[in-house]
Amino acid sequence: MQNSLMNRLAELSTLTDTPGALTRLFLSPAHRRAIMLITAWMQDAGLETHVDAIGNLIGRTKNSTGKPTLLLGSHIDTVRDAGPYDGNFGVLAAISAVKALAPDPSYAIEIIAFGDEEGSRFPQTLSGSRAVAGIFDPSALDAADKTGTTMRDALKAFGCNPGAIAQIARNPAEILAYVELHIEQGPVLEGAKLPVGIVTAINGASRLSVTLTGTAGHAGTIPMSMRRDALAAAAEQILFIQSHATAIPNLVATVGSIAVHPGAPNSVPGRATYSIDIRAPEDSIRAQAVATITGRLKEIAAGRDIEITITQTHDAPATECAPWLQAHLAAAIAAQNLPVFHLPSGAGHDAMAIAALCPVAMLFVRCKGGISHTPAESITAEDAEIAVAVLLEFLRNFEKPENA
Amino acid sequence: MQNSLMNRLAELSTLTDTPGALTRLFLSPAHRRAIMLITAWMQDAGLETHVDAIGNLIGRTKNSTGKPTLLLGSHIDTVRDAGPYDGNFGVLAAISAVKALAPDPSYAIEIIAFGDEEGSRFPQTLSGSRAVAGIFDPSALDAADKTGTTMRDALKAFGCNPGAIAQIARNPAEILAYVELHIEQGPVLEGAKLPVGIVTAINGASRLSVTLTGTAGHAGTIPMSMRRDALAAAAEQILFIQSHATAIPNLVATVGSIAVHPGAPNSVPGRATYSIDIRAPEDSIRAQAVATITGRLKEIAAGRDIEITITQTHDAPATECAPWLQAHLAAAIAAQNLPVFHLPSGAGHDAMAIAALCPVAMLFVRCKGGISHTPAESITAEDAEIAVAVLLEFLRNFEKPENA
Repeated sequence: MQNSLMNRLAELSTLTDTPGALTRLFLSPAHRRAIMLITAWMQDAGLETHVDAIGNLIGRTKNSTGKPTLLLGSHIDTVRDAGPYDGNFGVLAAISAVKALAPDPSYAIEIIAFGDEEGSRFPQTLSGSRAVAGIFDPSALDAADKTGTTMRDALKAFGCNPGAIAQIARNPAEILAYVELHIEQGPVLEGAKLPVGIVTAINGASRLSVTLTGTAGHAGTIPMSMRRDALAAAAEQILFIQSHATAIPNLVATVGSIAVHPGAPNSVPGRATYSIDIRAPEDSIRAQAVATITGRLKEIAAGRDIEITITQTHDAPATECAPWLQAHLAAAIAAQNLPVFHLPSGAGHDAMAIAALCPVAMLFVRCKGGISHTPAESITAEDAEIAVAVLLEFLRNFEKPENA
Repeated sequence: MQNSLMNRLAELSTLTDTPGALTRLFLSPAHRRAIMLITAWMQDAGLETHVDAIGNLIGRTKNSTGKPTLLLGSHIDTVRDAGPYDGNFGVLAAISAVKALAPDPSYAIEIIAFGDEEGSRFPQTLSGSRAVAGIFDPSALDAADKTGTTMRDALKAFGCNPGAIAQIARNPAEILAYVELHIEQGPVLEGAKLPVGIVTAINGASRLSVTLTGTAGHAGTIPMSMRRDALAAAAEQILFIQSHATAIPNLVATVGSIAVHPGAPNSVPGRATYSIDIRAPEDSIRAQAVATITGRLKEIAAGRDIEITITQTHDAPATECAPWLQAHLAAAIAAQNLPVFHLPSGAGHDAMAIAALCPVAMLFVRCKGGISHTPAESITAEDAEIAVAVLLEFLRNFEKPENA
């Protein structure tokens, strides 16, 4: 099984819009070829397939009309110069598990290969999962790619009917849950020497922009005691941000970009601007971190006679993974004689959007070095086999509790 | 007198290559008009004038052939969008003082208006003073401006003979000393509430380039404890550099530029590169600072498992101002009933090059807010008058000691 899955992942990774690298953009020729290939694999697993109004490929167990439905899946678009596993693994692993699942379960299963999670083509992410969840904003259809083509026109050219997107929103009463397998994209499982882990939540994220204004001047003529150095203030703040986040479990805070003005080796920096990205699996922890960091940054600036402006540029709440689904996954992992390990997801996933429709859960698979979004992205066939086995065990025993 | 000097500085500041701003480039039309105007003022002060092979304007006391010579002066080129006083003040203040000096002294005086101190046109600074000091590198003649014109061709078009530059190098046996008046370009005199100060030394400068290499990664998926964040390491180092320089008198150290890679808000920085500019009036202090800072930066990097490369990109020794000349200036200041105040020069000046020829000294004049190299550069007429009075007193009593 694992060889078949790994071979399929390798074959799928050859379908690209840019020869020599894997770049599979939403509604591109490579996306169309990927749908054709995966359609064949879905049908081989006994599923009935169709492409919906926003370009998602859907495979459903046969003779299941009217049955409550468990959704599986992930996305088949990629970033530019991507690796083979991000998204694609979740779709093909689900196909492998469902193929091995016999006889058909009492509930219906749909595997969805979402068409746009990454947002690599249009300035819009999670289009496919948002549409299924009924939270797709039609104004996104006006978003244009770099060539000026709108999502609306690209959908029409792909054979989809953008006017029918509202109708693909699923009825929550008919959907049991959504389970997504995905590579971790981080180093935690590798560090724990474990092939799989259960996601507790998809982290919420806050993004801040900080601007510090001091006084620029000649690096030779202004004594240290008379300086209002914006970069020195930023340095003290960046150190605080790092140490504060390190002290709080599951919180991460990152200063990923910084610019100083004038920016010359012989000038005292008069202005510094930097970004802060703050993520946590619990919104209350994140809100407290934003408040603590913001307060301390203002104190540091005041202590250095530096003006400070802090702007929040992004705020997305955390998505909790349903405890009862986590418990089902835990039982399936334990059945493989593996330790049960929980971790938050720092990256975003289709499950964030689907959470508006139904309970969600995610199973992470160890990836080499925590690396993703590059051709160096790597998983082992053994870990892939374990992930499929866990999902198969999950499907065999899946039952939604009355009170869930 | 001060009104005349301030009026002349205002008139000279109208001679520009860019209408609406003061930009007077070496060997430009504005430079030619400035030479014509200053020639008239030099002749009005009783000096005989000529333009030398590298475009310096020189005015010498009459009937002084063969007498040992005191050099005065500064430069009349400017940065782009300059203020009226940087360089120009030193030339015109010397003319005012020499005009007031009667009868002529026992020694000869030459006032030199150097043509290229700033290096605003060619990638070369101090061309005029280097030529007079005999340390002009002829390969600089091949340096080209933004239009592709070489310094050699620009000199010819200006009416100068670049082939004769070696012959304008002065004979050290004939030169007594060089004294330069200049605006401070820093805030120290303003802070001390003093109009003038004696320069102890022109600071030596070291410039380092630091590159830190950690591991880039996803800002959401890598726990704080597993990060090798190059910017966080840089922040700790920048704070150390600032605190170390603050603790040592007259030392300044500046991190003026920084860049991080990948440089995205959602990426842990894998690489950071920044500059360090270290200046001190004593080379031993600067060398010790470079060693201490370099050592501590390596410790900080090692403590964070970050690779570090430190490259020295510039190293210029300090220029000591001759103690006997400082003492003469101190006596002239005391004669004005003013406190005698000493300070180092953080910026470079023509005196650095002339120090290869003879003992040098500098008198700084207070400037508003320590600001220079912008149109906001400002001095008061009262301070200008005091500076000229100090120089006049200096000239009246000037005598080179036997042992100097």
